[in-house]
Amino acid sequence: MASRNFKFVLAYDGTDFFGWQIQPKKRTVQETLETVIALMTQEKRVKVNASGRTDSGVHAVGQVVNFHTDTHHSAEVLMRGVNARLPADVVISSAEVVPRSFDANRTAVKKLYRYVIHDADVPNPFLRRYCHQSRQRLDVDLMREAADCLKGKHDFACFETEWPNRASSVRTILHLSLSRVGEWIWVDVEADGFLYNMVRAITGTLVQVGRGYWPPSQVKTILESRDRTQAGPNVPPQGLFLMRVTYPETLE
Amino acid sequence: MASRNFKFVLAYDGTDFFGWQIQPKKRTVQETLETVIALMTQEKRVKVNASGRTDSGVHAVGQVVNFHTDTHHSAEVLMRGVNARLPADVVISSAEVVPRSFDANRTAVKKLYRYVIHDADVPNPFLRRYCHQSRQRLDVDLMREAADCLKGKHDFACFETEWPNRASSVRTILHLSLSRVGEWIWVDVEADGFLYNMVRAITGTLVQVGRGYWPPSQVKTILESRDRTQAGPNVPPQGLFLMRVTYPETLE
Repeated sequence: MASRNFKFVLAYDGTDFFGWQIQPKKRTVQETLETVIALMTQEKRVKVNASGRTDSGVHAVGQVVNFHTDTHHSAEVLMRGVNARLPADVVISSAEVVPRSFDANRTAVKKLYRYVIHDADVPNPFLRRYCHQSRQRLDVDLMREAADCLKGKHDFACFETEWPNRASSVRTILHLSLSRVGEWIWVDVEADGFLYNMVRAITGTLVQVGRGYWPPSQVKTILESRDRTQAGPNVPPQGLFLMRVTYPETLE
Repeated sequence: MASRNFKFVLAYDGTDFFGWQIQPKKRTVQETLETVIALMTQEKRVKVNASGRTDSGVHAVGQVVNFHTDTHHSAEVLMRGVNARLPADVVISSAEVVPRSFDANRTAVKKLYRYVIHDADVPNPFLRRYCHQSRQRLDVDLMREAADCLKGKHDFACFETEWPNRASSVRTILHLSLSRVGEWIWVDVEADGFLYNMVRAITGTLVQVGRGYWPPSQVKTILESRDRTQAGPNVPPQGLFLMRVTYPETLE
Protein backbone atom coordinates (compact mmCIF):
# COMPACT_ATOMS: atom_id res chain seq x y z
CA MET A 1 0.00 0.00 0.00
CA ALA A 2 1.35 3.41 -0.96
CA SER A 3 2.03 5.80 1.89
CA ARG A 4 -0.57 8.47 2.55
CA ASN A 5 -0.39 11.91 4.13
CA PHE A 6 -2.52 12.30 7.29
CA LYS A 7 -3.63 15.55 8.88
CA PHE A 8 -4.57 15.66 12.57
CA VAL A 9 -6.02 18.58 14.50
CA LEU A 10 -5.19 18.25 18.20
CA ALA A 11 -5.71 19.93 21.55
CA TYR A 12 -3.35 19.72 24.48
CA ASP A 13 -3.02 21.04 27.98
CA GLY A 14 0.55 22.39 27.98
CA THR A 15 0.91 22.34 31.79
CA ASP A 16 2.82 19.08 32.09
CA PHE A 17 4.73 19.24 28.80
CA PHE A 18 8.08 20.83 28.03
CA GLY A 19 6.49 22.26 24.90
CA TRP A 20 5.98 20.70 21.50
CA GLN A 21 9.46 19.84 20.29
CA ILE A 22 11.35 16.66 21.23
CA GLN A 23 14.15 17.20 23.74
CA PRO A 24 16.23 14.57 25.50
CA LYS A 25 14.72 13.31 28.79
CA LYS A 26 11.78 15.75 28.71
CA ARG A 27 8.10 14.99 28.26
CA THR A 28 7.07 16.70 25.02
CA VAL A 29 3.88 16.64 22.95
CA GLN A 30 5.77 15.63 19.80
CA GLU A 31 7.38 12.58 21.38
CA THR A 32 4.14 11.53 23.11
CA LEU A 33 2.25 11.71 19.81
CA GLU A 34 4.94 10.09 17.64
CA THR A 35 5.25 7.14 20.04
CA VAL A 36 1.52 6.45 19.99
CA ILE A 37 1.15 6.82 16.20
CA ALA A 38 4.09 4.45 15.64
CA LEU A 39 2.38 1.90 17.91
CA MET A 40 -0.80 2.12 15.84
CA THR A 41 0.92 2.00 12.43
CA GLN A 42 3.50 -0.60 13.54
CA GLU A 43 6.36 1.47 12.23
CA LYS A 44 9.65 2.05 14.01
CA ARG A 45 9.39 5.78 13.90
CA VAL A 46 6.84 8.23 12.55
CA LYS A 47 7.96 11.80 12.12
CA VAL A 48 5.18 14.26 12.89
CA ASN A 49 5.38 17.75 11.42
CA ALA A 50 3.53 20.53 13.29
CA SER A 51 2.30 23.95 12.16
CA GLY A 52 4.82 25.34 14.63
CA ARG A 53 6.36 24.66 18.02
CA THR A 54 4.64 25.73 21.19
CA ASP A 55 6.68 26.56 24.27
CA SER A 56 6.69 24.87 27.63
CA GLY A 57 3.34 25.54 29.37
CA VAL A 58 1.58 26.88 26.25
CA HIS A 59 -1.73 25.20 25.33
CA ALA A 60 -3.30 24.28 22.00
CA VAL A 61 -6.93 24.00 21.02
CA GLY A 62 -6.29 23.63 17.28
CA GLN A 63 -2.68 22.61 16.64
CA VAL A 64 -2.30 20.98 13.21
CA VAL A 65 0.17 18.25 12.25
CA ASN A 66 0.78 16.00 9.27
CA PHE A 67 2.71 12.76 8.80
CA HIS A 68 3.24 10.15 6.11
CA THR A 69 2.54 6.51 6.84
CA ASP A 70 1.56 3.41 4.87
CA THR A 71 -0.91 2.13 7.47
CA HIS A 72 -4.03 0.37 6.13
CA HIS A 73 -6.20 2.18 8.75
CA SER A 74 -8.67 4.83 7.70
CA ALA A 75 -8.14 8.31 9.21
CA GLU A 76 -11.13 7.74 11.52
CA VAL A 77 -9.85 4.39 12.83
CA LEU A 78 -6.33 5.75 13.25
CA MET A 79 -7.68 8.72 15.25
CA ARG A 80 -9.76 6.50 17.55
CA GLY A 81 -6.83 4.15 18.16
CA VAL A 82 -4.45 7.03 18.86
CA ASN A 83 -6.95 8.72 21.21
CA ALA A 84 -7.42 5.48 23.15
CA ARG A 85 -3.65 5.32 23.78
CA LEU A 86 -2.83 9.00 24.36
CA PRO A 87 -2.55 10.34 27.91
CA ALA A 88 -5.45 12.50 29.11
CA ASP A 89 -3.70 15.81 28.35
CA VAL A 90 -3.62 15.37 24.54
CA VAL A 91 -6.54 14.58 22.27
CA ILE A 92 -6.97 14.40 18.49
CA SER A 93 -10.17 16.25 17.52
CA SER A 94 -10.18 15.50 13.78
CA ALA A 95 -8.28 13.42 11.24
CA GLU A 96 -8.25 13.19 7.46
CA VAL A 97 -6.11 12.06 4.55
CA VAL A 98 -4.76 15.08 2.65
CA PRO A 99 -2.85 15.59 -0.62
CA ARG A 100 0.87 14.75 -0.52
CA SER A 101 1.72 18.43 -0.94
CA PHE A 102 0.07 19.37 2.39
CA ASP A 103 2.71 20.41 4.94
CA ALA A 104 1.35 21.59 8.30
CA ASN A 105 4.16 24.10 8.69
CA ARG A 106 5.05 25.33 5.22
CA THR A 107 1.58 25.51 3.69
CA ALA A 108 -0.05 27.32 6.64
CA VAL A 109 -1.57 30.62 5.54
CA LYS A 110 -2.22 32.09 8.99
CA LYS A 111 -2.37 31.19 12.66
CA LEU A 112 -4.61 32.48 15.43
CA TYR A 113 -3.36 32.72 19.00
CA ARG A 114 -5.47 33.74 21.99
CA TYR A 115 -3.97 35.13 25.20
CA VAL A 116 -6.31 34.85 28.20
CA ILE A 117 -6.16 37.26 31.15
CA HIS A 118 -8.33 37.12 34.28
CA ASP A 119 -8.25 40.32 36.33
CA ALA A 120 -10.41 39.51 39.36
CA ASP A 121 -9.61 41.13 42.68
CA VAL A 122 -9.07 37.69 44.26
CA PRO A 123 -7.38 35.11 41.98
CA ASN A 124 -9.28 31.90 41.31
CA PRO A 125 -7.29 28.75 42.16
CA PHE A 126 -9.00 26.72 39.42
CA LEU A 127 -7.89 29.05 36.63
CA ARG A 128 -4.19 29.44 37.32
CA ARG A 129 -3.03 26.94 34.70
CA TYR A 130 -5.15 28.45 31.92
CA CYS A 131 -4.76 32.21 32.12
CA HIS A 132 -2.64 35.03 33.43
CA GLN A 133 -4.17 36.38 36.63
CA SER A 134 -3.71 40.10 36.97
CA ARG A 135 -4.36 41.49 40.46
CA GLN A 136 -4.87 44.89 38.90
CA ARG A 137 -7.97 45.70 36.88
CA LEU A 138 -6.97 46.52 33.29
CA ASP A 139 -8.47 49.24 31.08
CA VAL A 140 -9.31 47.35 27.89
CA ASP A 141 -10.34 50.50 26.01
CA LEU A 142 -6.83 51.91 26.43
CA MET A 143 -5.29 48.56 25.42
CA ARG A 144 -7.45 48.48 22.29
CA GLU A 145 -6.41 52.01 21.36
CA ALA A 146 -2.75 51.06 21.85
CA ALA A 147 -3.07 47.86 19.81
CA ASP A 148 -4.40 49.65 16.76
CA CYS A 149 -0.96 50.56 15.40
CA LEU A 150 0.11 46.89 15.40
CA LYS A 151 -2.39 45.82 12.76
CA GLY A 152 -1.01 45.19 9.27
CA LYS A 153 2.53 44.61 7.99
CA HIS A 154 5.37 45.76 10.27
CA ASP A 155 8.83 44.88 11.48
CA PHE A 156 8.00 43.34 14.88
CA ALA A 157 11.62 43.05 16.09
CA CYS A 158 10.66 44.81 19.35
CA PHE A 159 8.44 41.84 20.24
CA GLU A 160 10.95 39.09 19.38
CA THR A 161 12.93 37.21 22.00
CA GLU A 162 16.53 36.48 21.00
CA TRP A 163 16.52 38.88 18.10
CA PRO A 164 18.18 38.85 15.58
CA ASN A 165 17.49 35.16 15.08
CA ARG A 166 15.80 35.27 11.75
CA ALA A 167 16.28 36.58 8.26
CA SER A 168 13.37 38.93 8.69
CA SER A 169 11.18 40.04 11.57
CA VAL A 170 8.54 41.49 9.25
CA ARG A 171 5.11 39.88 9.71
CA THR A 172 1.51 40.82 8.92
CA ILE A 173 -1.10 40.91 11.67
CA LEU A 174 -4.39 40.18 9.92
CA HIS A 175 -6.61 40.42 12.98
CA LEU A 176 -6.05 41.81 16.46
CA SER A 177 -8.88 42.21 18.95
CA LEU A 178 -9.34 42.63 22.68
CA SER A 179 -12.59 41.55 24.30
CA ARG A 180 -13.74 41.68 27.89
CA VAL A 181 -16.48 39.51 29.39
CA GLY A 182 -16.74 40.10 33.13
CA GLU A 183 -13.28 39.44 34.58
CA TRP A 184 -12.01 37.76 31.41
CA ILE A 185 -9.93 39.49 28.75
CA TRP A 186 -9.08 37.77 25.46
CA VAL A 187 -6.31 39.07 23.26
CA ASP A 188 -6.73 37.45 19.83
CA VAL A 189 -3.90 37.80 17.31
CA GLU A 190 -4.01 36.25 13.86
CA ALA A 191 -0.97 36.65 11.60
CA ASP A 192 0.75 35.12 8.60
CA GLY A 193 3.53 34.07 10.96
CA PHE A 194 4.86 34.73 14.45
CA LEU A 195 8.27 35.55 15.88
CA TYR A 196 9.52 33.78 18.99
CA ASN A 197 7.41 34.91 22.00
CA MET A 198 5.67 37.55 19.87
CA VAL A 199 2.14 37.19 21.32
CA ARG A 200 3.42 37.12 24.91
CA ALA A 201 5.52 40.25 24.31
CA ILE A 202 2.67 42.12 22.59
CA THR A 203 0.26 41.19 25.40
CA GLY A 204 2.84 42.10 28.07
CA THR A 205 3.20 45.51 26.44
CA LEU A 206 -0.56 46.06 26.20
CA VAL A 207 -0.88 45.10 29.90
CA GLN A 208 1.48 47.97 30.77
CA VAL A 209 -0.96 50.29 28.97
CA GLY A 210 -4.01 48.65 30.57
CA ARG A 211 -2.67 49.21 34.06
CA GLY A 212 -1.90 52.86 33.29
CA TYR A 213 1.89 52.59 33.27
CA TRP A 214 2.24 53.73 29.65
CA PRO A 215 -0.02 55.90 27.48
CA PRO A 216 -1.47 54.10 24.43
CA SER A 217 0.73 56.18 22.10
CA GLN A 218 3.83 54.56 23.65
CA VAL A 219 3.20 51.33 21.73
CA LYS A 220 3.79 53.01 18.37
CA THR A 221 7.09 54.40 19.66
CA ILE A 222 8.07 50.93 20.86
CA LEU A 223 7.16 49.33 17.53
CA GLU A 224 9.23 51.87 15.62
CA SER A 225 12.22 51.40 17.92
CA ARG A 226 12.59 47.73 16.82
CA ASP A 227 14.23 47.30 20.21
CA ARG A 228 13.07 44.43 22.44
CA THR A 229 14.22 46.26 25.59
CA GLN A 230 11.68 49.03 24.92
CA ALA A 231 8.63 46.71 25.01
CA GLY A 232 6.93 45.23 28.07
CA PRO A 233 7.88 41.88 29.66
CA ASN A 234 6.54 38.60 28.26
CA VAL A 235 3.39 37.51 30.05
CA PRO A 236 3.60 33.90 31.33
CA PRO A 237 3.01 30.89 29.02
CA GLN A 238 -0.07 29.44 30.75
CA GLY A 239 -2.37 32.14 29.29
CA LEU A 240 -1.46 31.35 25.67
CA PHE A 241 -3.52 29.09 23.39
CA LEU A 242 -2.85 28.17 19.75
CA MET A 243 -6.45 28.32 18.54
CA ARG A 244 -6.50 27.71 14.78
CA VAL A 245 -4.25 27.24 11.78
CA THR A 246 -5.62 28.02 8.32
CA TYR A 247 -4.52 26.43 5.03
CA PRO A 248 -5.42 27.12 1.38
CA GLU A 249 -8.71 25.39 0.60
CA THR A 250 -7.22 23.43 -2.30
CA LEU A 251 -4.88 21.65 0.11
CA GLU A 252 -7.57 20.47 2.50
CA MET B 1 -5.71 41.60 73.62
CA ALA B 2 -8.20 38.79 74.11
CA SER B 3 -8.17 36.07 71.52
CA ARG B 4 -10.88 36.16 68.87
CA ASN B 5 -12.54 33.49 66.73
CA PHE B 6 -12.02 33.96 62.97
CA LYS B 7 -14.05 32.34 60.22
CA PHE B 8 -12.55 31.94 56.72
CA VAL B 9 -14.30 30.71 53.59
CA LEU B 10 -11.78 29.26 51.17
CA ALA B 11 -11.46 27.68 47.74
CA TYR B 12 -8.78 25.24 46.70
CA ASP B 13 -7.79 23.19 43.71
CA GLY B 14 -7.34 19.73 45.22
CA THR B 15 -5.13 18.42 42.38
CA ASP B 16 -1.77 18.90 44.06
CA PHE B 17 -2.85 18.30 47.68
CA PHE B 18 -3.08 15.08 49.63
CA GLY B 19 -6.45 16.24 50.89
CA TRP B 20 -7.30 18.55 53.78
CA GLN B 21 -5.88 16.82 56.82
CA ILE B 22 -2.26 17.08 57.98
CA GLN B 23 -0.18 13.98 57.28
CA PRO B 24 3.57 13.56 57.71
CA LYS B 25 5.62 14.50 54.64
CA LYS B 26 2.58 15.20 52.45
CA ARG B 27 1.39 18.54 51.09
CA THR B 28 -2.03 19.18 52.66
CA VAL B 29 -4.37 22.17 52.65
CA GLN B 30 -4.51 22.25 56.45
CA GLU B 31 -0.75 22.47 56.87
CA THR B 32 -0.38 25.02 54.07
CA LEU B 33 -3.03 27.24 55.64
CA GLU B 34 -1.87 26.85 59.27
CA THR B 35 1.70 27.74 58.33
CA VAL B 36 0.68 30.94 56.58
CA ILE B 37 -1.75 32.05 59.32
CA ALA B 38 0.92 31.47 61.99
CA LEU B 39 3.31 33.65 59.97
CA MET B 40 0.76 36.47 59.88
CA THR B 41 -0.24 36.21 63.56
CA GLN B 42 3.33 35.58 64.75
CA GLU B 43 2.28 32.55 66.70
CA LYS B 44 4.14 29.26 66.89
CA ARG B 45 1.20 27.22 65.80
CA VAL B 46 -2.37 27.99 64.86
CA LYS B 47 -4.81 25.10 64.81
CA VAL B 48 -7.38 25.47 62.04
CA ASN B 49 -10.67 23.61 62.35
CA ALA B 50 -12.50 22.78 59.10
CA SER B 51 -16.15 21.93 58.41
CA GLY B 52 -14.84 18.54 57.36
CA ARG B 53 -11.93 16.84 55.65
CA THR B 54 -11.75 16.58 51.91
CA ASP B 55 -9.90 13.69 50.28
CA SER B 56 -6.87 13.78 48.07
CA GLY B 57 -7.81 15.34 44.71
CA VAL B 58 -11.18 16.73 45.91
CA HIS B 59 -11.76 20.47 45.35
CA ALA B 60 -13.47 23.12 47.44
CA VAL B 61 -15.26 26.28 46.38
CA GLY B 62 -16.70 27.06 49.81
CA GLN B 63 -14.82 25.17 52.53
CA VAL B 64 -15.25 26.86 55.92
CA VAL B 65 -12.73 26.95 58.76
CA ASN B 66 -12.38 28.70 62.10
CA PHE B 67 -9.43 29.37 64.39
CA HIS B 68 -8.70 31.30 67.56
CA THR B 69 -5.89 33.84 67.63
CA ASP B 70 -5.01 37.02 69.53
CA THR B 71 -3.69 38.89 66.50
CA HIS B 72 -4.38 42.64 66.38
CA HIS B 73 -5.21 42.42 62.65
CA SER B 74 -8.75 42.93 61.43
CA ALA B 75 -10.34 40.02 59.55
CA GLU B 76 -9.90 41.92 56.27
CA VAL B 77 -6.20 42.65 56.83
CA LEU B 78 -5.55 39.09 58.00
CA MET B 79 -7.25 37.73 54.87
CA ARG B 80 -5.23 39.95 52.53
CA GLY B 81 -1.97 39.03 54.24
CA VAL B 82 -2.77 35.32 54.15
CA ASN B 83 -3.82 35.48 50.48
CA ALA B 84 -0.58 37.25 49.57
CA ARG B 85 1.42 34.39 51.12
CA LEU B 86 -0.68 31.38 50.06
CA PRO B 87 0.32 29.36 46.99
CA ALA B 88 -1.85 29.86 43.89
CA ASP B 89 -4.00 26.77 44.50
CA VAL B 90 -5.65 28.06 47.72
CA VAL B 91 -7.45 31.34 48.22
CA ILE B 92 -9.49 32.85 51.04
CA SER B 93 -12.67 34.36 49.63
CA SER B 94 -14.10 35.88 52.81
CA ALA B 95 -13.13 36.45 56.43
CA GLU B 96 -14.93 37.62 59.55
CA VAL B 97 -14.77 37.55 63.32
CA VAL B 98 -17.46 35.23 64.72
CA PRO B 99 -18.80 34.41 68.23
CA ARG B 100 -16.60 32.13 70.34
CA SER B 101 -19.21 29.39 70.09
CA PHE B 102 -18.83 29.10 66.30
CA ASP B 103 -17.17 25.79 65.38
CA ALA B 104 -16.82 25.15 61.63
CA ASN B 105 -17.33 21.44 62.10
CA ARG B 106 -19.73 21.01 65.02
CA THR B 107 -22.09 23.90 64.36
CA ALA B 108 -22.53 23.18 60.63
CA VAL B 109 -26.19 22.62 59.78
CA LYS B 110 -25.73 21.23 56.26
CA LYS B 111 -23.18 20.87 53.49
CA LEU B 112 -23.58 20.97 49.73
CA TYR B 113 -21.36 18.90 47.45
CA ARG B 114 -21.38 19.01 43.65
CA TYR B 115 -20.13 16.15 41.50
CA VAL B 116 -19.27 17.21 37.93
CA ILE B 117 -19.45 14.80 34.99
CA HIS B 118 -18.56 15.62 31.37
CA ASP B 119 -19.82 13.03 28.88
CA ALA B 120 -18.52 14.27 25.54
CA ASP B 121 -17.64 11.77 22.83
CA VAL B 122 -14.04 13.02 22.82
CA PRO B 123 -12.63 13.96 26.25
CA ASN B 124 -11.37 17.52 26.66
CA PRO B 125 -7.76 17.72 27.91
CA PHE B 126 -8.41 20.98 29.78
CA LEU B 127 -11.17 19.52 31.95
CA ARG B 128 -9.59 16.35 33.26
CA ARG B 129 -8.62 17.74 36.66
CA TYR B 130 -12.06 19.18 37.35
CA CYS B 131 -14.61 16.55 36.35
CA HIS B 132 -15.15 12.89 35.65
CA GLN B 133 -15.08 12.32 31.89
CA SER B 134 -17.48 9.61 30.82
CA ARG B 135 -16.91 8.28 27.30
CA GLN B 136 -20.48 7.02 27.32
CA ARG B 137 -23.44 9.40 27.08
CA LEU B 138 -25.53 9.16 30.27
CA ASP B 139 -29.33 9.25 30.46
CA VAL B 140 -29.96 11.92 33.09
CA ASP B 141 -33.72 11.29 33.17
CA LEU B 142 -33.11 7.71 34.31
CA MET B 143 -30.55 8.89 36.87
CA ARG B 144 -33.03 11.43 38.25
CA GLU B 145 -35.71 8.75 38.55
CA ALA B 146 -33.25 6.48 40.39
CA ALA B 147 -32.09 9.25 42.73
CA ASP B 148 -35.58 9.99 43.95
CA CYS B 149 -35.58 7.26 46.63
CA LEU B 150 -32.40 8.71 48.22
CA LYS B 151 -34.03 11.97 49.31
CA GLY B 152 -34.83 12.29 53.00
CA LYS B 153 -33.63 10.39 56.06
CA HIS B 154 -32.13 6.94 55.43
CA ASP B 155 -29.45 4.56 56.56
CA PHE B 156 -26.82 5.15 53.84
CA ALA B 157 -24.50 2.30 54.88
CA CYS B 158 -24.47 1.04 51.26
CA PHE B 159 -22.69 4.24 50.21
CA GLU B 160 -20.07 4.29 53.00
CA THR B 161 -16.48 3.23 52.47
CA GLU B 162 -15.01 1.26 55.40
CA TRP B 163 -18.36 0.67 57.05
CA PRO B 164 -19.01 0.11 59.94
CA ASN B 165 -16.82 2.98 61.03
CA ARG B 166 -19.34 5.17 62.74
CA ALA B 167 -21.96 4.95 65.42
CA SER B 168 -24.66 5.60 62.86
CA SER B 169 -24.84 5.72 59.10
CA VAL B 170 -28.22 7.47 59.13
CA ARG B 171 -28.18 10.84 57.38
CA THR B 172 -30.75 13.19 55.86
CA ILE B 173 -30.41 14.29 52.24
CA LEU B 174 -32.14 17.69 52.11
CA HIS B 175 -31.60 18.32 48.41
CA LEU B 176 -30.57 16.08 45.54
CA SER B 177 -30.69 17.24 41.92
CA LEU B 178 -29.22 16.27 38.57
CA SER B 179 -28.89 18.87 35.84
CA ARG B 180 -27.56 18.65 32.34
CA VAL B 181 -26.28 21.59 30.28
CA GLY B 182 -24.85 20.36 26.98
CA GLU B 183 -22.17 17.79 27.83
CA TRP B 184 -22.08 18.77 31.51
CA ILE B 185 -23.92 16.93 34.27
CA TRP B 186 -24.04 18.26 37.83
CA VAL B 187 -25.04 16.02 40.71
CA ASP B 188 -25.82 18.29 43.67
CA VAL B 189 -26.26 16.68 47.10
CA GLU B 190 -26.99 18.68 50.23
CA ALA B 191 -27.24 16.80 53.55
CA ASP B 192 -26.99 17.28 57.29
CA GLY B 193 -23.81 15.21 57.18
CA PHE B 194 -21.92 12.84 54.92
CA LEU B 195 -20.40 9.39 55.34
CA TYR B 196 -16.92 8.67 54.02
CA ASN B 197 -17.02 8.71 50.17
CA MET B 198 -20.81 9.01 50.20
CA VAL B 199 -21.21 11.44 47.28
CA ARG B 200 -18.75 9.53 45.12
CA ALA B 201 -20.53 6.23 45.82
CA ILE B 202 -24.00 7.70 45.16
CA THR B 203 -22.80 9.25 41.90
CA GLY B 204 -21.03 6.04 40.87
CA THR B 205 -24.26 4.15 41.42
CA LEU B 206 -26.33 6.69 39.45
CA VAL B 207 -23.80 6.47 36.60
CA GLN B 208 -24.50 2.72 36.35
CA VAL B 209 -28.16 3.64 35.85
CA GLY B 210 -27.36 6.45 33.40
CA ARG B 211 -25.38 4.13 31.16
CA GLY B 212 -28.19 1.56 31.16
CA TYR B 213 -26.45 -1.08 33.26
CA TRP B 214 -29.06 -1.03 36.05
CA PRO B 215 -32.76 -0.06 35.97
CA PRO B 216 -33.62 2.97 38.15
CA SER B 217 -35.51 0.72 40.61
CA GLN B 218 -32.22 -1.05 41.46
CA VAL B 219 -31.10 1.93 43.55
CA LYS B 220 -33.90 1.43 46.09
CA THR B 221 -32.89 -2.24 46.42
CA ILE B 222 -29.26 -1.19 46.95
CA LEU B 223 -30.23 1.41 49.58
CA GLU B 224 -32.28 -1.14 51.50
CA SER B 225 -29.48 -3.73 51.38
CA ARG B 226 -27.19 -1.46 53.48
CA ASP B 227 -24.40 -3.37 51.77
CA ARG B 228 -21.55 -1.40 50.16
CA THR B 229 -20.76 -4.23 47.76
CA GLN B 230 -24.22 -3.84 46.15
CA ALA B 231 -23.69 -0.21 45.10
CA GLY B 232 -21.66 1.11 42.16
CA PRO B 233 -17.94 2.00 42.34
CA ASN B 234 -16.80 5.38 43.67
CA VAL B 235 -16.33 7.87 40.86
CA PRO B 236 -12.87 9.55 40.96
CA PRO B 237 -12.11 12.47 43.33
CA GLN B 238 -11.37 15.14 40.71
CA GLY B 239 -15.08 15.61 39.90
CA LEU B 240 -16.03 16.44 43.50
CA PHE B 241 -16.42 19.98 44.87
CA LEU B 242 -17.38 21.06 48.40
CA MET B 243 -19.60 23.99 47.43
CA ARG B 244 -21.15 25.45 50.56
CA VAL B 245 -21.47 24.91 54.30
CA THR B 246 -24.44 26.42 56.12
CA TYR B 247 -24.54 27.52 59.79
CA PRO B 248 -27.34 28.78 62.05
CA GLU B 249 -27.81 32.49 61.38
CA THR B 250 -27.29 33.40 65.02
CA LEU B 251 -23.74 32.06 64.85
CA GLU B 252 -22.68 34.12 61.85
